[in-house]
Amino acid sequence: MLGNFSYCNPTKLYFGDNSLKYLGDELKKYGQNVVLIYGGGSIKKNGIYDEVIGILNEAGKTVSEISGVMPNPTLEKLYEGIEIARKANADLILAVGGGSVCDYAKAVAVSVNCDEDPWEKYFVKFDEPECKIVPVGCVLTMVGTGSEMNAGSVITNRKASLKIGHVFASEEVMPRFSVLNPKYTLTLPHYQMVAGIYDIFNHICEQYFSGEDDNTSDYLAEALMKSLLVSSRIANKNPNDYEARSNIMWTATWALNTLIAKGKSTDWEVHMLGQAVGAITDATHGMTLAAVSLPYYRHIMPYGLKKFRRFAVNVFGVNELGKTDEEIANEGLKALEDWMNEIGLVMNITELGATENDIEKIADATLVMEGGYKVLNRDDIVEILRESL
Amino acid sequence: MLGNFSYCNPTKLYFGDNSLKYLGDELKKYGQNVVLIYGGGSIKKNGIYDEVIGILNEAGKTVSEISGVMPNPTLEKLYEGIEIARKANADLILAVGGGSVCDYAKAVAVSVNCDEDPWEKYFVKFDEPECKIVPVGCVLTMVGTGSEMNAGSVITNRKASLKIGHVFASEEVMPRFSVLNPKYTLTLPHYQMVAGIYDIFNHICEQYFSGEDDNTSDYLAEALMKSLLVSSRIANKNPNDYEARSNIMWTATWALNTLIAKGKSTDWEVHMLGQAVGAITDATHGMTLAAVSLPYYRHIMPYGLKKFRRFAVNVFGVNELGKTDEEIANEGLKALEDWMNEIGLVMNITELGATENDIEKIADATLVMEGGYKVLNRDDIVEILRESL
Repeated sequence: MLGNFSYCNPTKLYFGDNSLKYLGDELKKYGQNVVLIYGGGSIKKNGIYDEVIGILNEAGKTVSEISGVMPNPTLEKLYEGIEIARKANADLILAVGGGSVCDYAKAVAVSVNCDEDPWEKYFVKFDEPECKIVPVGCVLTMVGTGSEMNAGSVITNRKASLKIGHVFASEEVMPRFSVLNPKYTLTLPHYQMVAGIYDIFNHICEQYFSGEDDNTSDYLAEALMKSLLVSSRIANKNPNDYEARSNIMWTATWALNTLIAKGKSTDWEVHMLGQAVGAITDATHGMTLAAVSLPYYRHIMPYGLKKFRRFAVNVFGVNELGKTDEEIANEGLKALEDWMNEIGLVMNITELGATENDIEKIADATLVMEGGYKVLNRDDIVEILRESL
Repeated sequence: MLGNFSYCNPTKLYFGDNSLKYLGDELKKYGQNVVLIYGGGSIKKNGIYDEVIGILNEAGKTVSEISGVMPNPTLEKLYEGIEIARKANADLILAVGGGSVCDYAKAVAVSVNCDEDPWEKYFVKFDEPECKIVPVGCVLTMVGTGSEMNAGSVITNRKASLKIGHVFASEEVMPRFSVLNPKYTLTLPHYQMVAGIYDIFNHICEQYFSGEDDNTSDYLAEALMKSLLVSSRIANKNPNDYEARSNIMWTATWALNTLIAKGKSTDWEVHMLGQAVGAITDATHGMTLAAVSLPYYRHIMPYGLKKFRRFAVNVFGVNELGKTDEEIANEGLKALEDWMNEIGLVMNITELGATENDIEKIADATLVMEGGYKVLNRDDIVEILRESL
């Protein structure tokens, strides 16, 4: 049921193929010093860097840069960025990139004016910032994480072999604005595109497959899944279909900006399994999720049969006539599998580089969540991983 | 298609049966002087007034009051409120009531620090405020308008016989926070409850029945309609079902906070017809919409057949097998009619007090919108109104 909750997402979104032109208006709201953050330099090849620098120059800003933010931003990189932002006296942190760059920018933003160690404070003790948070803006170039409209940040501590995410409670951590231009996503390789699509789909599943209630959030989750199924099939055939890529980008934002989790419990066990696989294989995040999903969902289906039945009917349009609940639910998972194969997802962890010998190690690294239809024990986890080989 | 647009809804929502307890936290963010706005006094009977005053006193605020805000707030009442808010040196305007009270509070908020006449500026010229806007907070006691999370305001000028709504462009006009407690809605009479439900449903329809695209917004609109159909049927049988009333309240907010209109055209002709009926009959808003909806939708169906077909299948689960598009679309409207009858809506304008003799006058007062599947001419309007008798 819809219990007690609060909702606040103040991020201003500029969407569309001319959305970057609003960056100049936003820059006026902040002080002189802008710290520009980006990744491996692809934005220099595709021209986005030059466009952004042009707008920053036109606004007369003093620009410092943090470049080379990696797909899984490390603690060392965070320390480096905090120093740069402090020296720059940052009034605005501008992230230009995908979810990792945006996640990283938020971690810098809550640490610049904080004396404590950010790893201890935010990723071990899960404290909230008491210091002044530097405003973050985002120009999104990849789709999937939803980081452009939420207060989440993920940092990897290589020494401790830990990758930890913190969804901050305060909406102050959310980007003040995000520029969402679907054109920027057109150049992504097919493998990355479909991995991102499955990341989005699974974000929705993680929030949907939990609880027995029939509330508005469940309907909204189904809507996002249905839209994504349609647009992903179009984009798979024609990655240059701007409209399909637009709908994928918009769906990604709403899949993980807290809306569809409101008033309900959530699961996130597929992410725990996938992240453990990722820690061993260094495989692309979305593919690790795809590789473990079906074994996981087939394993827990009997414990959440009503919801899996509903998923089959409402998301995949499975015909209910003359079938048992279990048959309907199974047909739904079969339809999910067919779609995953159709768009070219990696369907097992073997293909990602994991072997039988890794199973115990992956199981060790798998956190157990409590919001799903079955709280997994060690045997469950090992069984699911074996079926994922 | 999803074109270029911006999205920003910074309103903080507190939802649930203990949501009022967060009012105290919010009050700390604002200055000493609070102007409390409410309607006819029902909040004094049901205890909400005393609770709110208790929290205001505990926060040590200086409270001024504007009471007696009517269902269609008038320009005279607005002038009165502006004076009170000016004298009080308002730091926060707190609306406790339904959509009219919240609409009115926003109109006061944009006028307190403005020298120009608010009617001329905001409701004739549709200017945006340049002056400092007084922050608005809302404790919602009725459901339907969505005013708790949007920048809309409707004021009636009795002298000019005009009722005009302005959806302000600036998110600064939106309530800073809204307290949504479904319990407050339980005492509403059945007639008002179902009128509110149809208002919500029609807000979704107005945004859905426009354009030929298959975008994420259309799926979200269908989700809200499906959720509302389920919860309204439960609430119709048992108005005290807290969960159903919760889902209705949450759906109302998302039906008109701009989300489902993003990237698409919208219609709003049913509201134009209904408001014209309301001007003659003074009938409840939601009932005026219900009374003209089916004749309108049957009239425009041939021009938007694809969408009406989709509505039938996706919202009402009409079986498509062996039927023409038109048959499917007609079955959808029949299913809509059945649901409307089931929950007890007024299905014709005769029952609302309009007669054959009023048709021309109502037609005169009906504004013609351009986003629907057919731009109505005078004959269309007269025909629809006759069929609504």
